[in-house]
Amino acid sequence: MSGGALQGIRVLDLTSVVMGPVATQFFADYGADVVKIEPPEGDLLRTLGGKSVTPKMASKFLHMNRNKRSVVLDLKQPAARGALKRLCAGADVLVVNMRAAALKRLGLGYDELRAANGKLVYCSLVGFGQSGRYAAKPAYDTIIQGSAGVAACHARSTGTPRYTPMVMADHIVGLIAVQMVLLALYQRKSSGAGQHIEVPMFENMAAFVMCEHMYLRTFDPPLGATGDPRVLEPEARPLPTADGFICVSANTDKQAFAFFDAVGRPELKADRRFESVAARFENVRDYFEVRAQSLRSKTTGEWLELLERADVPCMPYHTFESLLDDPHLREVGMFERVAHPTEGAIWNIALPNRLASGARSDYRPAPKLGQHTREVLGEAGLSEKEIEDLEAGSPPAGKTSREAR
Amino acid sequence: MSGGALQGIRVLDLTSVVMGPVATQFFADYGADVVKIEPPEGDLLRTLGGKSVTPKMASKFLHMNRNKRSVVLDLKQPAARGALKRLCAGADVLVVNMRAAALKRLGLGYDELRAANGKLVYCSLVGFGQSGRYAAKPAYDTIIQGSAGVAACHARSTGTPRYTPMVMADHIVGLIAVQMVLLALYQRKSSGAGQHIEVPMFENMAAFVMCEHMYLRTFDPPLGATGDPRVLEPEARPLPTADGFICVSANTDKQAFAFFDAVGRPELKADRRFESVAARFENVRDYFEVRAQSLRSKTTGEWLELLERADVPCMPYHTFESLLDDPHLREVGMFERVAHPTEGAIWNIALPNRLASGARSDYRPAPKLGQHTREVLGEAGLSEKEIEDLEAGSPPAGKTSREAR
Repeated sequence: MSGGALQGIRVLDLTSVVMGPVATQFFADYGADVVKIEPPEGDLLRTLGGKSVTPKMASKFLHMNRNKRSVVLDLKQPAARGALKRLCAGADVLVVNMRAAALKRLGLGYDELRAANGKLVYCSLVGFGQSGRYAAKPAYDTIIQGSAGVAACHARSTGTPRYTPMVMADHIVGLIAVQMVLLALYQRKSSGAGQHIEVPMFENMAAFVMCEHMYLRTFDPPLGATGDPRVLEPEARPLPTADGFICVSANTDKQAFAFFDAVGRPELKADRRFESVAARFENVRDYFEVRAQSLRSKTTGEWLELLERADVPCMPYHTFESLLDDPHLREVGMFERVAHPTEGAIWNIALPNRLASGARSDYRPAPKLGQHTREVLGEAGLSEKEIEDLEAGSPPAGKTSREAR
Repeated sequence: MSGGALQGIRVLDLTSVVMGPVATQFFADYGADVVKIEPPEGDLLRTLGGKSVTPKMASKFLHMNRNKRSVVLDLKQPAARGALKRLCAGADVLVVNMRAAALKRLGLGYDELRAANGKLVYCSLVGFGQSGRYAAKPAYDTIIQGSAGVAACHARSTGTPRYTPMVMADHIVGLIAVQMVLLALYQRKSSGAGQHIEVPMFENMAAFVMCEHMYLRTFDPPLGATGDPRVLEPEARPLPTADGFICVSANTDKQAFAFFDAVGRPELKADRRFESVAARFENVRDYFEVRAQSLRSKTTGEWLELLERADVPCMPYHTFESLLDDPHLREVGMFERVAHPTEGAIWNIALPNRLASGARSDYRPAPKLGQHTREVLGEAGLSEKEIEDLEAGSPPAGKTSREAR
């Protein structure tokens, strides 16, 4: 009993790497029983995510698969496909990121599964919408960042097309998939029926970028060019101080004037380029340039104190290391040291959001590969003999040819 | 009657700019009645989002506020606060991004509103969790990007801390807020009770970044440094061709070897640095360097054809302009030309996700400031006289001193 808002919901997770696991993580954290179906060699992220204490327990895998159960099924075996269908018959949600043709071959298309379970919410994570010409193309995070406009943001800002150095498209579209599944579960409470949902990476990321940067081409005829100049301004970045960097935002007149005073340039308050919100918007490059040049005389700590007193919004610039040591994050309990049965002590990332009720009360660390195969298949009514036959039919882990993406 | 999954749900939206409006946009698109409460001068994004045909209808505002109704209430007036409380009594969801102290002063704290409406889901979007030392600090997208590790990703990749040129933290945390509210609505279907949710930007973005880049410091003692080297590799970007750029991902042996063949370097298949997934991971810099140098001899169009035939994942690199012209996006109907009552023809971004049921069937373009004040207040039972008095008490739009962020 998880005690969470989604207690009683069973999610079958046929995904791997980042997008799918991020999505199903939400359901696991809020109390659903998430059963992760893995091939005999395991989710690629188990190794692709770097070193671990025991094999196949990479850090990224740990962060994206806690509170889930792991079941190994070699779907090349007919008996394994049969077992999976039995699990589907009792599931509330199925999340897949295989291509449609492969799922059909496995007998796991939506139409087939719905026949056995009309309440199933079936969520297909795809690279591209299935009604356009890219439908069958493979997708990876970087390819989507490059084609859907993320790299173009960097090109417009600095001159070089570049990916944001995070698996950002996977992660964002995973968050969006959660919304869609929750919506379908909400609707099912009234209708009693499940449905098929298709969540395409390319379209979702194009929408994510273009709601900001379609800009003046939103109007037809256009009122000007694409791209929000404020956001694309190259000097929109942490500002150099005597000993590092600081993050400052001074947008209202009150904030901007307090900033000019704090940095000893009070005459700029009367400068026509900077005297109002509209003037600073028109002269954004000059304004950001002045900001970037103003802070080199004192340390970050000194500026934080001064600017905070002047009511100018500011924060330390954090590296990954200093972020782990941030005192506020310590106070809210962001990183919690927990014991993992095989990996020893690890730093778990706590749920960032506070709510009166809904989070599961029992934390379960990320599972070893196949840790719950017998448990889950037994619950689904498979006999000891059937489970043993399934396991005997699987090639031992590590001896297959499936490769990292 | 919207016909969507959330038909019958009333969302009161006391937010502005990006994070809140992105969150409530979801509810509007899926059929809820979203009532946007604006001060007499309107949501800052109406002007901060750039030029428009008629005043205060900037493109970003249009994309983030469709399907909503706009009600002007000057909350400095006691009568306006009274009217808002009447609206709260009949609402299912309230989303706020004012600071807690300000809400309390207005009589809009959670405890007060719950007394009148125990079913209310009250979602506070905050910069920082309220139990840590940054609780009262103001937050903006860039400050959060800089302090929560986004800028550090760029620093680790290219040497320069820099924001991703999108209002990315606002947008992502807005998506996460949707999850939390949907969870509470789902739970309310059984419990009958609402609840208070707190969604902090800093913590959510720290979690977003660190689930990838805590990396080997996840283990205690650490197995190595922070930062996923594959993702942080500076050459992880669109690759130059004879006439532009192309996005290529070649990760499995099959893909990598096909890539070497396609670019006329078959000898690299036997190169010990590149002969396996593990070898390419160890030598990621060399591998990405080879990829970056291999494509300058042909045009992007020629490579797309060649690589696609060789089954190497690839996509065109898109600028904002070429993305608007992408043939796949045309086929799936991504950008649809619609008529706006005051702005003329505009390009709406269609919903990217496909589902059997749930989206609202009646598209309503983004509202003019105060377009629905009389309609909504009338529905809430205010008399003509009360509404007129409220309007008379408001200073005319455009004459107030509130400023852009």
